[in-house]
Amino acid sequence: MAQPTRVTAAFIIIGNEILSGRTQDANLAFLAQRLGETGIQVVEARVIPDIEQTIIDTVRELAVRVDYVFTSGGIGPTHDDITADAIARAFGTETFEHPEAVAILERHYAEGEFNPARRKMARVPRGASLLENPVSSAPGFKIENVHVLAGVPKIMQAMVDMLLPSLAGGAVVESRTITVLIGESVIATEMGDVEAAFADIDVGSYPYFKPGASGTSIVLRGSNIAMLDEALATITAKLEARGIEIWAGDHK
Amino acid sequence: MAQPTRVTAAFIIIGNEILSGRTQDANLAFLAQRLGETGIQVVEARVIPDIEQTIIDTVRELAVRVDYVFTSGGIGPTHDDITADAIARAFGTETFEHPEAVAILERHYAEGEFNPARRKMARVPRGASLLENPVSSAPGFKIENVHVLAGVPKIMQAMVDMLLPSLAGGAVVESRTITVLIGESVIATEMGDVEAAFADIDVGSYPYFKPGASGTSIVLRGSNIAMLDEALATITAKLEARGIEIWAGDHK
Repeated sequence: MAQPTRVTAAFIIIGNEILSGRTQDANLAFLAQRLGETGIQVVEARVIPDIEQTIIDTVRELAVRVDYVFTSGGIGPTHDDITADAIARAFGTETFEHPEAVAILERHYAEGEFNPARRKMARVPRGASLLENPVSSAPGFKIENVHVLAGVPKIMQAMVDMLLPSLAGGAVVESRTITVLIGESVIATEMGDVEAAFADIDVGSYPYFKPGASGTSIVLRGSNIAMLDEALATITAKLEARGIEIWAGDHK
Repeated sequence: MAQPTRVTAAFIIIGNEILSGRTQDANLAFLAQRLGETGIQVVEARVIPDIEQTIIDTVRELAVRVDYVFTSGGIGPTHDDITADAIARAFGTETFEHPEAVAILERHYAEGEFNPARRKMARVPRGASLLENPVSSAPGFKIENVHVLAGVPKIMQAMVDMLLPSLAGGAVVESRTITVLIGESVIATEMGDVEAAFADIDVGSYPYFKPGASGTSIVLRGSNIAMLDEALATITAKLEARGIEIWAGDHK
């Protein structure tokens, strides 16, 4: 049987406000979950400042390393929105005013509201295709394997949902979780044994600490579902054999 | 007058659970704010998986590029906690059982609770010094300019607060914010003009969208406080000259 393909993605969060701690990113978790359901694994995320050369270098480095690159931030109407120009340069080209983007923006804004700053949002790299923005209309764009999205979470996330059907995914990684009410060190051997016994299954150990209810969530992840469920049955049996109650989870 | 020094940091978030979207990172914003108050600017953050070679490559790349590197995640007692070994290898060394770390853990755990898995948490790279963990005792460590912290936010953040006084900061970047109840495109010219007129001031434009209260926060940032306040006065005057009401902020 052919192995299902592994399809990878990187996410570049462009924005001084995230790096300064003024704003908490909310887009990585959303993107990673949505892509995961489509069979695309986010293998790296970077938060970088609004500096043209940094954007160029980061896009060039990641675009050859993964199947899909996504960026968020810096495609608005103001002086600090430099993403489109930087990405054009990363691909050795320049931006131009895309006629379809102008038409979209003209339709969106009321008479007299389509000012010169907003017109800047119609500029995309030569060779790029537009990505639909169902919230505020100003489109993102795609050039080569790089998908350029807005930074505002409501807009970014709607754009992701619009473009998802156009992406070719590979093997979907599923997860199985069980939670026990004891510390992770007490069951470290069992988890390590299962990780070693099931080569394609990733066993994650996530301790949590709440007043009166500390414990460990064991998260098994893999794209071979039969093997995943076998690993789940194995860890469950190992814990039950030690008399450890499984408090919640996907076990039968 | 000598320019105050610019001191930089990078943050490496190590964890499959952040990349899969299962867990939302909460440490970047905290670290960036705390470091910022100390005069250390976070210039890049990366989220990477629990893969040894990726950790090694990322640490090596960033350690030579910034003044301080911080990592979070992967220093617990289980098989997927590979950060200490990976960072040892990044610096061409190996981990060993640090006697002081053993003593700290022995004091922390009740009789019979200091099991072999927990003992793993006493292993740090040769040449590393320990970083105090006031929450769960298991120490982090520092090797060269790399500070290795826990991933659980409550623990990570307490460790940051413990080590902050030992860090040498540079120029503190302050910010001034004013908020107007109009879209950013309408005041794009004024913001661009101020950015151009004040070379060392970064002018950020952050639109927000709420039912009935959309607007723009203009955030000025810089370490030259006199210049920062002059830039604030300038943008305020430019907006008021156009009859635009400043709804909230640091203006007089």
